[in-house]
Amino acid sequence: MSERNRSVPSVGMVGGGQLARMTHQAAIALGVGFRVLADSPSDSAALICGDVQLGDDRSPSDLSAFAKSCDVITFDHEHVPEPVLRELEKAGTVLRPGPDALRYAQDKLLMRARMTELGAPCPRWRGVATAADVDEFAAVTGWPVVLKAARGGYDGKGVWVAGSGEEAREVLDGAARAGVPMLVEEKVVFTRELAVQVARSPYGQVAAYPVVETVQRDGICHEVIAPAPGLDEERAVRIQELAIEIAHALGVVGMLAVELFETESGVVVNELAMRPHNSGHWTIEGARTSQFEQHLRAVLDLPLGAPGATAPYTVMANLLGGADPDVYRRYVHVMAKDPGVKIHFYGKEVRPGRKIGHVTVLGDDYEDLLARARDAASYLKGDQQ
Amino acid sequence: MSERNRSVPSVGMVGGGQLARMTHQAAIALGVGFRVLADSPSDSAALICGDVQLGDDRSPSDLSAFAKSCDVITFDHEHVPEPVLRELEKAGTVLRPGPDALRYAQDKLLMRARMTELGAPCPRWRGVATAADVDEFAAVTGWPVVLKAARGGYDGKGVWVAGSGEEAREVLDGAARAGVPMLVEEKVVFTRELAVQVARSPYGQVAAYPVVETVQRDGICHEVIAPAPGLDEERAVRIQELAIEIAHALGVVGMLAVELFETESGVVVNELAMRPHNSGHWTIEGARTSQFEQHLRAVLDLPLGAPGATAPYTVMANLLGGADPDVYRRYVHVMAKDPGVKIHFYGKEVRPGRKIGHVTVLGDDYEDLLARARDAASYLKGDQQ
Repeated sequence: MSERNRSVPSVGMVGGGQLARMTHQAAIALGVGFRVLADSPSDSAALICGDVQLGDDRSPSDLSAFAKSCDVITFDHEHVPEPVLRELEKAGTVLRPGPDALRYAQDKLLMRARMTELGAPCPRWRGVATAADVDEFAAVTGWPVVLKAARGGYDGKGVWVAGSGEEAREVLDGAARAGVPMLVEEKVVFTRELAVQVARSPYGQVAAYPVVETVQRDGICHEVIAPAPGLDEERAVRIQELAIEIAHALGVVGMLAVELFETESGVVVNELAMRPHNSGHWTIEGARTSQFEQHLRAVLDLPLGAPGATAPYTVMANLLGGADPDVYRRYVHVMAKDPGVKIHFYGKEVRPGRKIGHVTVLGDDYEDLLARARDAASYLKGDQQ
Repeated sequence: MSERNRSVPSVGMVGGGQLARMTHQAAIALGVGFRVLADSPSDSAALICGDVQLGDDRSPSDLSAFAKSCDVITFDHEHVPEPVLRELEKAGTVLRPGPDALRYAQDKLLMRARMTELGAPCPRWRGVATAADVDEFAAVTGWPVVLKAARGGYDGKGVWVAGSGEEAREVLDGAARAGVPMLVEEKVVFTRELAVQVARSPYGQVAAYPVVETVQRDGICHEVIAPAPGLDEERAVRIQELAIEIAHALGVVGMLAVELFETESGVVVNELAMRPHNSGHWTIEGARTSQFEQHLRAVLDLPLGAPGATAPYTVMANLLGGADPDVYRRYVHVMAKDPGVKIHFYGKEVRPGRKIGHVTVLGDDYEDLLARARDAASYLKGDQQ
């Protein structure tokens, strides 16, 4: 059904993934219009949203047709090419965030240059064209180093760790063949990974969420603990201030996630994302205003909601697909075992290693919460019988 | 979009009001299928749900066509006639709650007789056919008395207070013309109104929510305070036990709301509802499992979720339409004034006195929360400029 209510604005989200799915839930409560541009009717958001347009999110004509029925366009991902965004903007479409901000989430070279300019703490880095550039860099930082595709990637990857000049050469050869610009970064020795989210509205209002710890394995976020246990309060505030500074300097509108490494001596910025982010799924139950509602408020230039926590600790664990495709049968048992676990399924077909949902638990003792969340996730994946 | 995922069950809700709208939000997180049978594309749930069938909720053919694509049928209201429900059930449709339970929510005479049989505390009552019956009743209880239509009502009303035999005669004459069976109840002198919700699954599992205070004005629920302030703990437990007993005795599946009057000497049962209920909207943020998720779990025979409170107090205030149809413009100011207020709009056209949404606030001091919720509701209605 898509009876458009003209007295409330309508937000269009490009991309039909789980971020759009959860943003739809928030849009229902706010009573604003919400449309999704999806690739396929089986996309996570397309399965449940009442107002879906199918189309290609890189096609100027599909995007501009979609934009015609929306007051504001926002994004579930960063894949819309900058020239397409510029064209839409020139035609009068309101893009939030706009291409001037988004390009820093789309291009890691631009991002690093801008972060360095702002004085934000970064790993040592440089753009590289040849293996000799990498050798030169590693002569200073030591091996291994991290090679990153500035935009996109190839062979389904965007980040490589190279332990030697030879390994670096292989990666760069592949990148050259694929026409992908590359950068190298020192491999940061970190004690843990942190993330912080802020929302910024066109009016310039900001709201900062508590700094969280993210637990990654094999490059995939497995758990998020909010707030990051034992984080020095002064450091937490400095991290929030850093994110706010970045949001203002880059002109971000909507949610900004800043992923960081915590080291012995402080923090360094790892990545930026300008949309709701996996590190903020805990906010659905764990914060007074979820990141999805906050993103909508921000892109609609509404006053922002309170970002404070609703419990001393919230732990989120991603649900990764396992060998058993019948996850419904499995989750009945998780529900029976722990009636306090909040389950979020994305409606996606189960494939091994694929993010198909998440669980959230709230309480006082984060170690207990982490054990419960891990238990639910491992049972759902099929690691336990 | 309505790609049905065959590996998860699909719940069909009859009725496209705000209860279906909020149940849709809960169904998204659970990852189960959710369909709505709505009267019109502008129904509250039809506006946002991805899987809507338009049809008449009293038509056997529309209902059975709808039921074909659902594993379980449940209800946003009590208006489907019992014979239609019986026919569906005979044809193999899984109805939760089923007609054996639902008739007690559809017929106040049946309900009173059954409550009396169970020994549940009730106001004095009797079925009445003539004004003489009412006079006889009032000779014992005194005037005024409450006259109720056993089913439905007439002239848009179902409850009348009669202060004299003459007033009673007028009401009964109207009822006789409309063919509506009537009952009379004593007018209970109460100190306040309470409500309790329990969920029950076909397996027989139950979960009881905290007892709440409901604040009614002109027969409309204005606010709900959870838990009911100052309620004696023993009485609270007895009320929960009463609701559980009713749920079991009536074979309720899904949410059951029991509305009560609290008097000097105890409580008496006022009304029953077998679906998510206005007195439970506070559970979206205020309980670990919302009534909407719990209803879905129950009708799907899933293990029930934890019903405990997430904050010491939660206050919900209904948003009633005022003279200004542009409620969006007004809510911007409410958001700016109180970033902690949770707003829920139902997407309905604004009409004076119509329930168009609700707000929820959570915290430690219920008087402060009540003031904030009332302030938001009165501003949105337009009572404040």
